[in-house]
Amino acid sequence: MTPEEKLKTLGIDLPDIPKPLGTYVPLVRTGSLVYLSGMLPLKDGQLLKTGRVGESVSPEDGALCARAATINALAVLRFALGSLDRVVKCVKISGFVSSATDFTQQPMVINGAVDLLFDIFGEAGRHARSAVGVNILPLNSPVEVEFIFEISEDVSL
Amino acid sequence: MTPEEKLKTLGIDLPDIPKPLGTYVPLVRTGSLVYLSGMLPLKDGQLLKTGRVGESVSPEDGALCARAATINALAVLRFALGSLDRVVKCVKISGFVSSATDFTQQPMVINGAVDLLFDIFGEAGRHARSAVGVNILPLNSPVEVEFIFEISEDVSL
Amino acid sequence: MTPEEKLKTLGIDLPDIPKPLGTYVPLVRTGSLVYLSGMLPLKDGQLLKTGRVGESVSPEDGALCARAATINALAVLRFALGSLDRVVKCVKISGFVSSATDFTQQPMVINGAVDLLFDIFGEAGRHARSAVGVNILPLNSPVEVEFIFEISEDVSL
Repeated sequence: MTPEEKLKTLGIDLPDIPKPLGTYVPLVRTGSLVYLSGMLPLKDGQLLKTGRVGESVSPEDGALCARAATINALAVLRFALGSLDRVVKCVKISGFVSSATDFTQQPMVINGAVDLLFDIFGEAGRHARSAVGVNILPLNSPVEVEFIFEISEDVSL
Repeated sequence: MTPEEKLKTLGIDLPDIPKPLGTYVPLVRTGSLVYLSGMLPLKDGQLLKTGRVGESVSPEDGALCARAATINALAVLRFALGSLDRVVKCVKISGFVSSATDFTQQPMVINGAVDLLFDIFGEAGRHARSAVGVNILPLNSPVEVEFIFEISEDVSL
Repeated sequence: MTPEEKLKTLGIDLPDIPKPLGTYVPLVRTGSLVYLSGMLPLKDGQLLKTGRVGESVSPEDGALCARAATINALAVLRFALGSLDRVVKCVKISGFVSSATDFTQQPMVINGAVDLLFDIFGEAGRHARSAVGVNILPLNSPVEVEFIFEISEDVSL
């Protein structure tokens, strides 16, 4: 199955792309790489949850937020590329988790992003990643995730 | 106008490049990309401000610090490339904001960097970016910003 | 001396590669770059230290942890490339330091990674870097370090 078919099978409808909070852009291409801006778990313009994981947000809800941020990333990718099938591989994600000072399961939270990428892209979705705790994120979001993808050389952006 | 002309118009004098705080270098080239080390808002060897945004540093001063870190990045770039006119585009910035635990306007702070890049490089200055809060930064700096630029293939570094 | 010879001279035995904490991979290649996942100071499956630098972990021990994370990165690199001698250069490291709220010497901690790279790769080990403080890291690790290396084009991964 192609990534686009996988997406349909999983019942995921990609939303409109989130509006940047400044004069930057959601995606930049350089050579065969695309860099995405940090994605938040926004849905219909609202954060899925607010607060720190380990305080007002459970690790499970944190993982759902990381998944939602990834769905926004896929929406940006499809908008730019026309189709997710033009993704060659996911290269790197950096996951920031707004964390209680004693919360140490950031990897479990960011696996919400990691697992969705694997579900959609299969082996090509296996990426390098980091998961880091921070004390606070924009709009009091529980997570923010950055992405680097490799795309087909024949895509013109 | 070229980036160098824009810089003149804006009345910005690029300073001497900041000294690395270790055996690393301010800029590394790989292919058509240059990666810059995390830049601080140092001016004449002194931080413009110290402390957390939302505590002792206002969001407006935080944005000025992000702008000052960007001016240092441009100084490093011009030193390495000879001229900012050899920049093809700004690819990515990662902005870390030392933040009070309830400060959630990191995007506004990092827009101090984002807006200057747009002022100088125009459309080529529109990049992917992230803005993240952290509890503390080197030397108690309010911001630290990383940059990736794409440069002309014919530049030899 | 080659990097592999340097390693021997320094008496460093590269360990088995650390197991990813999810369905991601320790290293991804794209073109001539390899991106490594965030590395922790694990040795034989145990963190060298736990806690924040400036609280229960001294800056010196923090630097040893950054060095240990780098040794794990080198283990991953050698496993993937067959030999460290196929590294062209170290491009970028991002160092996250779990920090007491008043600890501002993150550069000194991350120099534990920086200095080892220079010892092993010489001039090719001089990279761009950032050092950032955070309130908490996975498994309560004092440091997490990400790496980007450039490798020989003739390596097939």
